[in-house]
Amino acid sequence: MSYLFKNANILTSDADEKKQLFVAVDKNTITYVGPDRPQGSFDRTIDCTGKLLCPGFYNVHCHSPMTLFRGYGEDLPLDKWLTERIFPAEDHLTPESTYSGSMLAIAEMISCGTVSFTDMYMFPEMTAKAVSETGIKANLTRPVLSFDPNEKPEDNFRFSEAKSFAEEFNGEADGRIIVDMSVHAEYTNTERSVRFTSEYALEHGLLMQMHLSETEKEQRECIERHGTTPAGFFLRCGAFDVPASAAHCVWVTDEDISIMAEKGVTAVHNPASNLKLGSGVMPIRKMLDGGVNIALGTDGASSNNMLDIISEMRLAAILHKGISRNASETRSSEMVPIITVNGARSQGRNDCGMIKPGFKADIVLLDMDSVNTIPSYDICASFAYSMKSDNVFMTMADGKILYENGEYLTLDIEKVKHEFRYIQEHYFDYLKG
Amino acid sequence: MSYLFKNANILTSDADEKKQLFVAVDKNTITYVGPDRPQGSFDRTIDCTGKLLCPGFYNVHCHSPMTLFRGYGEDLPLDKWLTERIFPAEDHLTPESTYSGSMLAIAEMISCGTVSFTDMYMFPEMTAKAVSETGIKANLTRPVLSFDPNEKPEDNFRFSEAKSFAEEFNGEADGRIIVDMSVHAEYTNTERSVRFTSEYALEHGLLMQMHLSETEKEQRECIERHGTTPAGFFLRCGAFDVPASAAHCVWVTDEDISIMAEKGVTAVHNPASNLKLGSGVMPIRKMLDGGVNIALGTDGASSNNMLDIISEMRLAAILHKGISRNASETRSSEMVPIITVNGARSQGRNDCGMIKPGFKADIVLLDMDSVNTIPSYDICASFAYSMKSDNVFMTMADGKILYENGEYLTLDIEKVKHEFRYIQEHYFDYLKG
Repeated sequence: MSYLFKNANILTSDADEKKQLFVAVDKNTITYVGPDRPQGSFDRTIDCTGKLLCPGFYNVHCHSPMTLFRGYGEDLPLDKWLTERIFPAEDHLTPESTYSGSMLAIAEMISCGTVSFTDMYMFPEMTAKAVSETGIKANLTRPVLSFDPNEKPEDNFRFSEAKSFAEEFNGEADGRIIVDMSVHAEYTNTERSVRFTSEYALEHGLLMQMHLSETEKEQRECIERHGTTPAGFFLRCGAFDVPASAAHCVWVTDEDISIMAEKGVTAVHNPASNLKLGSGVMPIRKMLDGGVNIALGTDGASSNNMLDIISEMRLAAILHKGISRNASETRSSEMVPIITVNGARSQGRNDCGMIKPGFKADIVLLDMDSVNTIPSYDICASFAYSMKSDNVFMTMADGKILYENGEYLTLDIEKVKHEFRYIQEHYFDYLKG
Repeated sequence: MSYLFKNANILTSDADEKKQLFVAVDKNTITYVGPDRPQGSFDRTIDCTGKLLCPGFYNVHCHSPMTLFRGYGEDLPLDKWLTERIFPAEDHLTPESTYSGSMLAIAEMISCGTVSFTDMYMFPEMTAKAVSETGIKANLTRPVLSFDPNEKPEDNFRFSEAKSFAEEFNGEADGRIIVDMSVHAEYTNTERSVRFTSEYALEHGLLMQMHLSETEKEQRECIERHGTTPAGFFLRCGAFDVPASAAHCVWVTDEDISIMAEKGVTAVHNPASNLKLGSGVMPIRKMLDGGVNIALGTDGASSNNMLDIISEMRLAAILHKGISRNASETRSSEMVPIITVNGARSQGRNDCGMIKPGFKADIVLLDMDSVNTIPSYDICASFAYSMKSDNVFMTMADGKILYENGEYLTLDIEKVKHEFRYIQEHYFDYLKG
């Protein structure tokens, strides 16, 4: 398909506004952006009057199948929530339930303007199937956990699964699926396991994902165990010798920030999850000033409980002002790259996240004529403070429209919900107890 | 009109869930709630399958016409934002622009399940007109400001306006409009002015509104000026001898909390505005434990920038956990009365805020079959953490449906937006500079 967007007011990923342009899309790529109508014919022309055309949004920390546990185990701190509720519930997971959970998650994300997500979970091949079918993009990984220092890393079944998954799925779905390697966290891995996994990633040109400094307890206990912070530990183990994406980063020190900036580690900010689980607030100003690539994630639906990246951005946009008691602490314009190109960069998608010829056609149209989006004196303020998922008019990923005017074009939402409910009722009866 | 809601799962204002009931509404009142189909015929039967039936939501601190300034003067601290941007802009206000701003605000609020709001602003008669036309309810007030200690309070033109407004509009629109008295804040009033206004309110059975302890500067300077906190000052001036509603309460002391609990003062929590303007975070746990009536407000669209009370509740539900670093700091069930009956109580509407026979028919239907609301293991968790304004299916106030399935039934939304844009373009040209 080819598309011509006309009368397009564009919010660029560097927070500039360009008015009244044409944007042409051929197959999965943006072929033209400019003031003159490009030559040729197009399968469809889309009039953007009253809309804002933005790069697609990136949700770069998620556990998509955890929609199954949305609202299960509430008002508990992270460690109790994990050990008493989530881990036991996860023992009941099957490939089918994982697929169903991911399908619901993808539907929610698409309706919020998300064109790509980063996911860390079991049965990633089932999430890959959901990604493949729905047209969204994703960096997927099967996380490694290893508690026994005597275990040979190559014998760890999770590593084997991660490796097989990478071999089979990396680059699938016309490159929409990228497979990463990952270690769940410092506190769920031995040094040997992290070294081995990182070396594998380096050797095979894969990215690394991990949780990092989410709680104060994690930070303190890591220092006790290893004489260094989680960031220092990962640095030492070679995990930052490949492009890495570290979720949470609530408790990072100034030195951690320097390490992350120097090694090009993306810090994935998950403000809602960090608040809800009582973890704290990531020091975003220091990290921005320190040159760290900051992107945004919802975390799983079980700890958010939404997968709404717009709501997440708006929370990030106001939260740090309140915490620092400085209304100028962050600026709305800083949120634009965070929700777009920084996320694409964290996924190693260097041809994504910008509205530019040659870039992948990841485009979101936002309704600027809604009760909450008029008036607009400052486009970045409208974007960061007033916008909500209701205002997503269209989500296009790789040149394919996934969602338009409330309708899903690549999935049958009633079927997705029906199957989800069936799975949930039959496999998760005990959760209701 | 009479309505019968059937198959209704009800979330009561005290956070209990009652399943599969009938709710009957005759004119503006709930006449029956129970398991058996009531006798008689109804103009319309509404099947609530897949929905959650809740008491209507209360947004009890707003400046509705300030939609005109949404996104105008961003990323500034409260005092600069007020003196450099908002106060000069307000000099250009007219009755017409105020009406238009309120109409847009009401449209936004209705779509978010708000059945009643509390408003403090100039030209309140124009907001009253908008309230009257649209079927929403509101407690309205013209705030008093008085800087000259030698001024006779009865000569203050703002007081005169407030008094005339009360005389003319209190109880209008079948009681949907209640007029309150108000002093803008301690720092914008003399002791004499507060005393006089409070006495007037007491004498005429009116409620009081004020801003209280919004910023640390306000708190500190009040102590310097008066030897006591804003709460202590208002207590001394008699402002708490009538039912009072105090917005923000970010910097209240333990003693202030005791005063507020004892005098029955409602603390209106405005978490988004307090974050965005860098003011801080209200100590909600202490205030709940201290027995203060806590309700919820969006503040004006210029400092939020949405008027979405559901988003506000969700922020309140997760924020305090993160700040205290305790995931159990607040519970989702505590948010239910805060967004419903506590708001009704703050407005002196003792026959509102509950789904009970004899109470006003203020009813919200929420879609529980949406991508972000399934599954639901715990109804309060779904309500407080997963819900968003997209999920509002119906808003009914005083037995009249104001909004259903995306349609406004008491206002012409295209006309509201058109007039708003016209007003904004013609009267507010200079804002664009």
